[in-house]
Amino acid sequence: MNESGRPQDLPLSNPRADRVRDVAKLAGRPARLKRGQFLAEGPQAVREALKLHQQRLAAGAPGVVTEVFASESCLDRFPEFEELAEGTNARLATDEVLAAMADTVNPQGIVAVCRFVDVALADVLDAGPRLIAVLCQVRDPGNAGTVLRAADSAGADAVIFTASSVDIYNPKAVRSTAGSLFHLPVVLAADPAELAAACKARGIGVLAADGYGQLDLDVLQDENARRRLTGAGPGSDYDLAAPTAWFFGNEAQGLSEAELELADHRVAVPVYGAAESLNLGTAATVCLYASARSQRRPAPLAQDHNG
Amino acid sequence: MNESGRPQDLPLSNPRADRVRDVAKLAGRPARLKRGQFLAEGPQAVREALKLHQQRLAAGAPGVVTEVFASESCLDRFPEFEELAEGTNARLATDEVLAAMADTVNPQGIVAVCRFVDVALADVLDAGPRLIAVLCQVRDPGNAGTVLRAADSAGADAVIFTASSVDIYNPKAVRSTAGSLFHLPVVLAADPAELAAACKARGIGVLAADGYGQLDLDVLQDENARRRLTGAGPGSDYDLAAPTAWFFGNEAQGLSEAELELADHRVAVPVYGAAESLNLGTAATVCLYASARSQRRPAPLAQDHNG
Repeated sequence: MNESGRPQDLPLSNPRADRVRDVAKLAGRPARLKRGQFLAEGPQAVREALKLHQQRLAAGAPGVVTEVFASESCLDRFPEFEELAEGTNARLATDEVLAAMADTVNPQGIVAVCRFVDVALADVLDAGPRLIAVLCQVRDPGNAGTVLRAADSAGADAVIFTASSVDIYNPKAVRSTAGSLFHLPVVLAADPAELAAACKARGIGVLAADGYGQLDLDVLQDENARRRLTGAGPGSDYDLAAPTAWFFGNEAQGLSEAELELADHRVAVPVYGAAESLNLGTAATVCLYASARSQRRPAPLAQDHNG
Repeated sequence: MNESGRPQDLPLSNPRADRVRDVAKLAGRPARLKRGQFLAEGPQAVREALKLHQQRLAAGAPGVVTEVFASESCLDRFPEFEELAEGTNARLATDEVLAAMADTVNPQGIVAVCRFVDVALADVLDAGPRLIAVLCQVRDPGNAGTVLRAADSAGADAVIFTASSVDIYNPKAVRSTAGSLFHLPVVLAADPAELAAACKARGIGVLAADGYGQLDLDVLQDENARRRLTGAGPGSDYDLAAPTAWFFGNEAQGLSEAELELADHRVAVPVYGAAESLNLGTAATVCLYASARSQRRPAPLAQDHNG
């Protein structure tokens, strides 16, 4: 790597080289677990990985990206990578090599080998989180990534996966996060009961998203708006402005009875049409955005009154 | 089909029979277009198709389901199908035949051949809709189906696909709707300009979901809550309680400039975290639920004051 960040060596061109195969093996869980590494593919994921890498280095922490492989044409299209990749172990590679490394048919000219980014549960809880998404036994990598991305959009402080959830470092899950995996802390293999107890001990409410829940999410949102507008005290229900951990269940079965019992309240997203249920991504999105709105708009309506 | 609804003939057992191949061909668009038919696979989709079929017959309208093929074990597990399938052309089939007919590896013992269910745009607009989801050039069948299901959950009155959108009768799209395709009217190949003009002529506001939109969806929701709470008149922005058609764009490019210009307002779903953008399903869910809440809760807070 030269000073400009663009690798000067000849591109890696042998798709059967050991180095290429080692990268390709990260598509499998055994290699990931053994090496503590996973693969980010495509410009968006690699860009977000490199941004986090540089942030960590600037903070004196270990970096995230161990290797970057890019085609010349990709660096021509995205010149920002030359600066972002500075100080990393970056190599040019042919499209054939990149295709052999990647899980996708078309990695769009760039892949990065990254160290696992998950953190300890205590680190998340000690930081005073206000909004947490907890995925319980979610099995589909696309769903896991989609909910992680939605949690990032809603400004959640962390996403926590319980034990026996899908591996978030699975290439399809990483792709589905669209870079959000590098935006917010992720905790893996949490024990739901320990997690719920730790949340409650810190004053974080635990809500279970459950189609049969006794509380209606839209009623909670109305209650929150009424409090903000009228200055009324908390009602008998749950104040969505409070720090909250949302538990979301498996895509087919929802939350188990044991998981439901850990929650302070079971909350249903109302179904206004004829759909039997919401899918996981839809339900999680509506719940997380309801909390985000309630938490982040302390008194917008009072301002209107002054205007 | 006997009176009980359970077919009495021997099960179809030859996966290479012409009848089986004819059904399997519905996985392809040419056969679907030629015959005006598509395939519903699995208990949930077939159940919803049969419910719509019976509703239509009861109303003196043509049915939806032309043929049902089910395994004995499926009928044992879901006895309700015997009543639902009454009066349809139903046949028992072996698992091997069902696998040969279906696009999925495992059709869970039941498939149905259905007539196209889409309706004319005028039929939707003349029914006085309050909430419409418009998908512009959406290309991924899973996304199309997911948004259709979310629209159903939010109680939308119709889902409209513009020309050059994915075929909603594609087996993957049908599966992603989880039966919602049979719950609300669907319009295909609409012209966006004609559609926007027709909406405006009928007093239906046209909103474009656009990450760069000048209006913030959460501000619109606050305005709506303020109106409901204080009885204030409409503000300068858009009243989410008004009849609304939401335009959602292609998953990669969003709405085109031409499509954006058709809208009364461009509305952004706020991104509270570091995510670059929302994916289509997340954005559509948040927008449709915001409208649904605003439209369906005329004065819940005033009631609280009386309580």
